[in-house]
Amino acid sequence: MASETGAVRVALLGCGTVGTEVVRLITEQADELAARVGARIELAGVAVRRPHRHPWLTENFPDLVTTDAGELVTRDDVDVVVEVIGGIEPVRGWLLEALKSGRSVVTANKALLAEDGPTLAEAADASGADLYYEAAVAGAIPLLRPLRESLAGDRITRVAGIVNGTSNFILSAMSSGGTSYVDALEEATRLGYAEADPSADVDGYDAASKAAILASLAFHTRFTASDVHREGMREVSASDVAAARRLGCTIKLLAICERVTDADGAESVSARVYPAMVPDSHPLAGVDGAFNAVFVEAEAAGQLMFYGQGAGGAPTASAVLGDLVAVARNRVGGGRGPRESAYASLPVRPIGEVPTRYHVDLEVADREGVLATIASEFARNGVSIAAVRQTGGVNGSVDRADGSDRSQARLTVVTHSAPEAALSATVSALLDLDHVLGVAGVLRVEGLGRAVSALGMGE
Amino acid sequence: MASETGAVRVALLGCGTVGTEVVRLITEQADELAARVGARIELAGVAVRRPHRHPWLTENFPDLVTTDAGELVTRDDVDVVVEVIGGIEPVRGWLLEALKSGRSVVTANKALLAEDGPTLAEAADASGADLYYEAAVAGAIPLLRPLRESLAGDRITRVAGIVNGTSNFILSAMSSGGTSYVDALEEATRLGYAEADPSADVDGYDAASKAAILASLAFHTRFTASDVHREGMREVSASDVAAARRLGCTIKLLAICERVTDADGAESVSARVYPAMVPDSHPLAGVDGAFNAVFVEAEAAGQLMFYGQGAGGAPTASAVLGDLVAVARNRVGGGRGPRESAYASLPVRPIGEVPTRYHVDLEVADREGVLATIASEFARNGVSIAAVRQTGGVNGSVDRADGSDRSQARLTVVTHSAPEAALSATVSALLDLDHVLGVAGVLRVEGLGRAVSALGMGE
Repeated sequence: MASETGAVRVALLGCGTVGTEVVRLITEQADELAARVGARIELAGVAVRRPHRHPWLTENFPDLVTTDAGELVTRDDVDVVVEVIGGIEPVRGWLLEALKSGRSVVTANKALLAEDGPTLAEAADASGADLYYEAAVAGAIPLLRPLRESLAGDRITRVAGIVNGTSNFILSAMSSGGTSYVDALEEATRLGYAEADPSADVDGYDAASKAAILASLAFHTRFTASDVHREGMREVSASDVAAARRLGCTIKLLAICERVTDADGAESVSARVYPAMVPDSHPLAGVDGAFNAVFVEAEAAGQLMFYGQGAGGAPTASAVLGDLVAVARNRVGGGRGPRESAYASLPVRPIGEVPTRYHVDLEVADREGVLATIASEFARNGVSIAAVRQTGGVNGSVDRADGSDRSQARLTVVTHSAPEAALSATVSALLDLDHVLGVAGVLRVEGLGRAVSALGMGE
Repeated sequence: MASETGAVRVALLGCGTVGTEVVRLITEQADELAARVGARIELAGVAVRRPHRHPWLTENFPDLVTTDAGELVTRDDVDVVVEVIGGIEPVRGWLLEALKSGRSVVTANKALLAEDGPTLAEAADASGADLYYEAAVAGAIPLLRPLRESLAGDRITRVAGIVNGTSNFILSAMSSGGTSYVDALEEATRLGYAEADPSADVDGYDAASKAAILASLAFHTRFTASDVHREGMREVSASDVAAARRLGCTIKLLAICERVTDADGAESVSARVYPAMVPDSHPLAGVDGAFNAVFVEAEAAGQLMFYGQGAGGAPTASAVLGDLVAVARNRVGGGRGPRESAYASLPVRPIGEVPTRYHVDLEVADREGVLATIASEFARNGVSIAAVRQTGGVNGSVDRADGSDRSQARLTVVTHSAPEAALSATVSALLDLDHVLGVAGVLRVEGLGRAVSALGMGE
């Protein structure tokens, strides 16, 4: 498969921010890369849909440019396919073709991996090709290789962190500047952090894809994005941010993957993405802007934290190049990297059965006995209250639909750990109470388990 | 080489805290490890010098125990040698024998690697065996594999952090409790963090070994411990800790490896270990107790941080097992892992030419003009002063050797970045001044370069 010159020949699919950096690094560092690999890494071609949109590429590498990605990926002089286009189709077909024909694939495509990773992995296994995708999760941060290799002799119990830089940038802006979601999103778009359609980032799809990939590697079971419970951050209001601040917390969009063991010893995996309050003293609370940070907990290793730039052209290209060097070394050595390990087949734990702590903000009628009524509703649904605070009271009044005019107060409840189903039932029941005028906000509070206690913040 | 049963057979050398955990993990997780490797990992033998000191081992695995490590490492039924004894001799001979005969080696032996790593690497290359040693630096933290593989397509510019848990524990105790070095060391010894002879930890030998390993991987050049400038932390006094606190800093024993580029483009590497003041707002300042944390900076990736437990039986065993799984997978797949890459051959930059900022505490005569005299001495030696503070003055007096009795003040100087040679010359010159009664302390102040500015702490 290797070219006649002994070089490892690369087909690059896509040449946006990341692809441009990949071209630059491969060409500018050619000698260093050759020394590290034991063979030169050469570009065989770069496929782009509209060449006129890539003046730097077409001026500097006119001979490499093609619009026919399908032809490029199985060309005789191609050993490795690097894909930085993104999205499911038509990329899936190209990568499958490459893998089936024994060409190794390096990709940053989290959406495709989270939707159809198993098919790609099986194609790679069948032909003995490598499938590497460090850049798909947390940009430049070496995270997948540590999970797949460094911790391969340990039992991982939890992977949790901030894996979407765009939503983190928006939440940081809302938190530090008191900005509204809409204004913060506008700023993120202006600075190029958010795309024209921000849904993948702010609705948690991107983080859910990454959670599926992380859970698959951590728990040796193939999960897809549909196995991940997903709540986005569009609903987070300036009032939620203020409420978090009063509690000494910061709101972060978290991806959490954990191994859950029942009383009878049965294991399952909970993978979920949602905005949650994190205590300010927790290291994740201080991860601002476009940075990512991920905690990994394993039985023997204890807690580990990884921190760095989660997106951007150069950081993502760094991860792509690391994989490319690995794949090229394998090719030169005649071997391949470790296969996907998916022997465990652990089931997904339904979100209703996953316990977390909650922060519930209620608008209530300022009447005697309201706290007792509400507290007993929490108790009836099996949700234990950790703390309650009442504010407002005599200030403010509200016109109700029935024309009555009553004084209003705000009741803030922080619960102990409770299953999502119990909390949902509690909120429904509360809304039926005459005393409760509305639920202003419900947010999870994540202490992040053992990580927290070891960092001096025990629940 | 693989045994008749298809299993990968392991000779374990040493069975202390780490070795015991390795035995436990290999036996208790046997089925999971087999699923991940594609073959069973079996213990072929465990070599210990005095079996009666290992009752757990001899009771549970009487057939595995041997006192003849030399015979064990090349026994026909051994594929991989795992070494957790430590020290140079007699371990070096055993590991060289194993590697020469094509057996792969997993070791946690930082001292041996830092003294004679190149010889081991060459033996591994010659026979096509693997040499893995993730556990040698920063315990459970996946750090060497990321440097060697994940960042293999990037240019690393700096690796800096806390890599010795014992000295960090002692410094944390001195800092939080106002404890003296002697008391803090006693506490560390009582808790099992420090050994009877603490020299390797407190004199920086352990950190220097790790710095040599980190620099070798980061800069593709073989460095040994003798290439690392080393200053221990025995001299750090309670008064230094108090001085750091007044400056909003914490004292940490740092290992720093960096690529330095001259004006003419020539590159060299500075590797050094010393106690230094770190601003409290820097993440390294908050790394307490036996934890380790390392910053890595690379041109494309930007900054990365790795954090976790740097020592202890289970965390170190986790790293050993990760390597063992990798080596076993390579054996099953018929390949080997990436070779040591040492093509760059960068020279070592002498410590005298390495610029850092300094904190200098001077006892001076409380006389008019003393500040001007001292400032001009700094200037004469090419050291630029960033800030000066004078305290004391009318309080206190001192009997001098010449019998005079003069009022004494303390002058605290923080310099801009200056080469070590210039600072040393300044201090010598200051001591010759009549105005200067003594130098109470000289400590480096590490802002940790780009890491700092990106974290909002620019110099």
